[in-house]
Amino acid sequence: MLPRGRPRALGAAALLLLLFLIGFFLFGGDLDCERSQQGGEWWGGGVAGSLPYSLTPRVPPDGRPRPRGAAALDGDLPAGYGGHNSSDCDPPRPRPRPPKCELLQVAIVCAGHNSSRDIITLVKSMLFYRKNPLHLHLVTDAVARNILETLFHTWMVPAVWVSFYNADELKPQVSWIPNKHYSGLYGLMKLVLPGVLPPDLVRVIVLDTDVTFASNIAELWALFAYFSDKQVIGLVENQSDWYFGNLWRNHRPWPALGRGFNTGVILLRLDRLRQAGWEQMWKMTATRELLTLPATSLADQDIFNAVIKEHPWLVQPLPCVWNVQLSDHTLAERCYSEASDLKVIHWNSPKKLRVKNKHVESFRNLYLTFLEYDGNLLRRELFGCPCPLPPGAKQLQRALARLDEEDACFEFRQQQLTVHRVHITFLPHKPPPSQPHDVTLVAQLSMDRLQMLEALCRHWPGPMSLALYLTDAEAQQFLRFVETSAVLSARQDVAYHVVYREGPFYPINQLRNVALAQALTPYVFLSDIDFLPAYSLYDYLRASIKQLELDGGRKAALVVPAFETLHYRFSFPTSKAELLALLDAGSLHTFRYHEWPRGHAPTDYAHWREAQEPYRVQWAADYEPYVVVPRDCPRYDSRFVGFGWNKVAHIMELDAQEYELLVLPEAFIIHLPHAPSLDISRFRSSPTYRDCLQALKDEFHQDLSRSYGAAALKYLTALQQPRGPV
Amino acid sequence: MLPRGRPRALGAAALLLLLFLIGFFLFGGDLDCERSQQGGEWWGGGVAGSLPYSLTPRVPPDGRPRPRGAAALDGDLPAGYGGHNSSDCDPPRPRPRPPKCELLQVAIVCAGHNSSRDIITLVKSMLFYRKNPLHLHLVTDAVARNILETLFHTWMVPAVWVSFYNADELKPQVSWIPNKHYSGLYGLMKLVLPGVLPPDLVRVIVLDTDVTFASNIAELWALFAYFSDKQVIGLVENQSDWYFGNLWRNHRPWPALGRGFNTGVILLRLDRLRQAGWEQMWKMTATRELLTLPATSLADQDIFNAVIKEHPWLVQPLPCVWNVQLSDHTLAERCYSEASDLKVIHWNSPKKLRVKNKHVESFRNLYLTFLEYDGNLLRRELFGCPCPLPPGAKQLQRALARLDEEDACFEFRQQQLTVHRVHITFLPHKPPPSQPHDVTLVAQLSMDRLQMLEALCRHWPGPMSLALYLTDAEAQQFLRFVETSAVLSARQDVAYHVVYREGPFYPINQLRNVALAQALTPYVFLSDIDFLPAYSLYDYLRASIKQLELDGGRKAALVVPAFETLHYRFSFPTSKAELLALLDAGSLHTFRYHEWPRGHAPTDYAHWREAQEPYRVQWAADYEPYVVVPRDCPRYDSRFVGFGWNKVAHIMELDAQEYELLVLPEAFIIHLPHAPSLDISRFRSSPTYRDCLQALKDEFHQDLSRSYGAAALKYLTALQQPRGPV
Repeated sequence: MLPRGRPRALGAAALLLLLFLIGFFLFGGDLDCERSQQGGEWWGGGVAGSLPYSLTPRVPPDGRPRPRGAAALDGDLPAGYGGHNSSDCDPPRPRPRPPKCELLQVAIVCAGHNSSRDIITLVKSMLFYRKNPLHLHLVTDAVARNILETLFHTWMVPAVWVSFYNADELKPQVSWIPNKHYSGLYGLMKLVLPGVLPPDLVRVIVLDTDVTFASNIAELWALFAYFSDKQVIGLVENQSDWYFGNLWRNHRPWPALGRGFNTGVILLRLDRLRQAGWEQMWKMTATRELLTLPATSLADQDIFNAVIKEHPWLVQPLPCVWNVQLSDHTLAERCYSEASDLKVIHWNSPKKLRVKNKHVESFRNLYLTFLEYDGNLLRRELFGCPCPLPPGAKQLQRALARLDEEDACFEFRQQQLTVHRVHITFLPHKPPPSQPHDVTLVAQLSMDRLQMLEALCRHWPGPMSLALYLTDAEAQQFLRFVETSAVLSARQDVAYHVVYREGPFYPINQLRNVALAQALTPYVFLSDIDFLPAYSLYDYLRASIKQLELDGGRKAALVVPAFETLHYRFSFPTSKAELLALLDAGSLHTFRYHEWPRGHAPTDYAHWREAQEPYRVQWAADYEPYVVVPRDCPRYDSRFVGFGWNKVAHIMELDAQEYELLVLPEAFIIHLPHAPSLDISRFRSSPTYRDCLQALKDEFHQDLSRSYGAAALKYLTALQQPRGPV
Repeated sequence: MLPRGRPRALGAAALLLLLFLIGFFLFGGDLDCERSQQGGEWWGGGVAGSLPYSLTPRVPPDGRPRPRGAAALDGDLPAGYGGHNSSDCDPPRPRPRPPKCELLQVAIVCAGHNSSRDIITLVKSMLFYRKNPLHLHLVTDAVARNILETLFHTWMVPAVWVSFYNADELKPQVSWIPNKHYSGLYGLMKLVLPGVLPPDLVRVIVLDTDVTFASNIAELWALFAYFSDKQVIGLVENQSDWYFGNLWRNHRPWPALGRGFNTGVILLRLDRLRQAGWEQMWKMTATRELLTLPATSLADQDIFNAVIKEHPWLVQPLPCVWNVQLSDHTLAERCYSEASDLKVIHWNSPKKLRVKNKHVESFRNLYLTFLEYDGNLLRRELFGCPCPLPPGAKQLQRALARLDEEDACFEFRQQQLTVHRVHITFLPHKPPPSQPHDVTLVAQLSMDRLQMLEALCRHWPGPMSLALYLTDAEAQQFLRFVETSAVLSARQDVAYHVVYREGPFYPINQLRNVALAQALTPYVFLSDIDFLPAYSLYDYLRASIKQLELDGGRKAALVVPAFETLHYRFSFPTSKAELLALLDAGSLHTFRYHEWPRGHAPTDYAHWREAQEPYRVQWAADYEPYVVVPRDCPRYDSRFVGFGWNKVAHIMELDAQEYELLVLPEAFIIHLPHAPSLDISRFRSSPTYRDCLQALKDEFHQDLSRSYGAAALKYLTALQQPRGPV
């Protein structure tokens, strides 16, 4: 259940209402996971306090306001603090404490591949410290939506809801504002949130993608309680002298109250903003300022500040620790060296982590903590909050509960059920222009095959869709690897999809399916990462698809014959003739000739030597050629994890669906040698492993019979013939 | 400065006093990083409050006390909470808040290899959330001390001090107590802490190694403020029915107050315990109980509970969230499902993470967070606390500051200066019995060579000292890899030393030096991980050392000739004759024969073919043989990071120190092929890399000339001759 806008949200609301009622009876109404999603009550009874310090800058002789004292900087405001003399016998001020189980609302604008990576680090930091259910409202372009929808769907974090809003539809509302900030048009979109978010949403925390949490977001949410009746926007003071102007000659910033406010972290009272006519208000201010100012320099922030300068009663200043700004000439040290605790850091320099700052190393460490943090570990329940499980999680939990821990194949079955987090198009990617005979190379790999990528790029000039099985930390190493490689960073047509590691087995077929699902051309070449294609293969395949008129509906799988070299140093043949010469010289072999000839025997290499035209071959047991098929071909059977039988089952299914197997006479790929991977060496020797594989095969055959009836009988017969090792 | 007991502690105290005075003048005495190390004041003026709820179990009809309500369970106790009617106009209760910059004292008992790994996870979780300086008091056996001293020394976490206390000396104080608990004798040592810790230490938090923090330890420390004048021990109630007895027939637990208390997390007022004659008190109680009970079942916990039963005024009960106990039949859910926040979890089942519990997955995730957390990221400063830097850190900071970021070799120089965290003997290890001619194989590797370990163990039956360059998460993968390998887990004479990754280059010579420093035999065979030794090599080397009378003071390096196979599948020769046959057949080559014959040419393979006796060879430029040398040989030059010249420089230094180079006629090792490592492929193509390597070589030669004078001239001359590629 990733509610897409209203209809799903309504369904969710109904479900939540039900759960709320159940929760009310079970827990006496103490737990309100969903109350504020209904636009409901504020924790603490709706009596708003006010923050126990004034914003008014104390203006020293030099005319510049000084930062406030340590306590005013602190995010944690104990009752009785702030110069109030407790002997006055005031009624005790309710200390806003994080409300257990209340649903907190967060809105973030996010566009493009790189911001989609950034937002995940932000979300990880938020989830790490949070104790409350969260509803994320994401204003995204199509790229970010595609990435984040898949990510959250597969992440399945308990008590997190995500709604998407189409940023492109909002563009007209802000595109009239000339803006020089690096965030571009999307940088202005926070202004229109009150109109975009659901009308029953009362409060929301708005965040930039470049902030990192170092504390529980509920503490920030609790600051809403300090808002007076008139206050609508909570903001932290700007931690630079930007709005004083005079940073350079002709520096003319937008108007602001004192040092102004930073909009990386905002608390919005949406109800009051709507009531107060926010849209008109900011548009009027912006229009007027733009009569004398050429453009915004800091996007939405300039406009927020101009509005606040005009209507200072709108703003509730927040303690500085909730937005520690790390720009080049930041004054943030005054904040964090006196405060007992940092709450949120904000990489608000265009240089981001490369900003110069004497403490930047420590801040970077906090950021890296979450950048490299294993997101799987955030699938933690909120104890004592009766929130419904994310979509799919319930079925998954049930399926996992049905597994027998004593079963020797328990780990296999657990791995099959594992839902891996998937981050599609991890790096910027330009889909190839649509061409009727185009082919995408599809493969999967883990860290130990990264060094194959450059060679593969040299051998295959066409589009690729690659699934990478990585930890979060490895994903960052991979990112750096691509950035430092001239060959890889020059390619925009290679899509990298990160599938996050979980469990003891390499989920080979799940990985293949991820890469296959993301291929955008009509045809796919289903390869493996250890193979290098003939230099001409990409062109040749497209020509063959055209020549064989596959686009006319002919159901065929084009077989690319596979070879291997056992030599570690090796000069790649540039033609079939050269390949045959190497084969005759014993420098090359047909693939797995020594250990498992059955896997490729039906390709009929003897025929291939002489062939001038594509020729048809028949399926036989254990055949597992590398093939080119239409993108809508059957998916791989994800029950096969680890090593063994993963391709065999797929080819069997192609045959069951009556794909012709056509061998291409000029096509070839060559397998390069490598040390056995850890996964393979760990399991190959295990008898349990073999037994479990056999059990999986049997189950696969049963399913095949169910799907294809009597026609599937031949596969079972073939299986029962005596054979060699797996 | 890792103070070993008193003398160092005194020095530290003097230094701290100085810094305190500086701090006082600079910061007006607000920051007291060191005050309580001096046995000083409690934050808040020393007025102790009392926790606003009573421990006395509310006894329901079934006679078993029920857990207290949610608020009493919470770790965070806001002022005005707890049924106090604020309209009473009481003077406001001082809410104990974590004191900024106060030094917190923590004591932990730790013995053996496995506990030394556990304690690091605990410490990581503590450091992650802490905002205060910490002083760790570690009561350790020799193994743990060796490991942890190296670890903390290389970790260099700001504002963390570590003192060690010899657990073996304390054994007589507790060994008279029969104890059935799995923690053994060390499980009883918490009892003697008041006598062991420095007499001026007033307060200490005592932790078991199997607890994990989920919050700032200062919040726990702040609970000292609730102690009444009589209270000396803060404890969390036991979260099982153990002390009620009757869990099974003849279950006779030690006496306890109600459900009893768990001693995984203890607050101790050491001053009052000493005053109250604690040592006599617990010994008397234990002696008396042991008249009727055969032994303690839960080690120290039984005795603490018996004492408290007798003197209930001694205990200050702590909120349950500070010790959430995850044993098999825990009642902890009553605590954590009502509390807003967990503070500390305690894996107090002997099954540890394999304990059965419906929420164990979520708790495990918290644990795994810190198990796999990159400890380097905890080298964060405490902003605004004027604590001195850890030993070496200041010089390091200065050296790093002197580097020029614009220098093309900046990253090289930064890497050379990097102090890597080192965890020696990461896995249980039994040093080999001392033998006069014994040889340890010394090598280093990273994750991508793990699969070499089994083969290496088969080829080398003797002791090994291996440095592994890993991330924290990889170290756990490595652990599982060893545990699941029958070959590896059978070996106790292989010492694995984890050096934690940091920086872009593989610090090859630093790794070699770590492995070399930990070798315990008189001789070492300096090998590389990609080589397999002849099956007979270990025996042959020991025989040769004896025969050549190296222990008589003959200064020699025994050369083991190196070969390579380019074939991925390969049958290892069992004798020199077989090796020569393979060489003649072209299946084997002398090492790097094709790309860099100079590296091994001086070994004189032609001579070796015929040799029956060890023969002497002369050093020549670029010679880099694999050698056997005495353990006290020169260290590798750690300026060489990444690839290139790292062994060459070492051999040059051996020659400069006039080691004879003797080639052994029956010794050989063979290099197996592998894909180029990521590190090598990333840098080999870079011209900057070559330039920097040249600069490093020049600097090495200058240093050599300084050390060896005119004798080093020959190396410079050799360098200046025209040569091939690096």
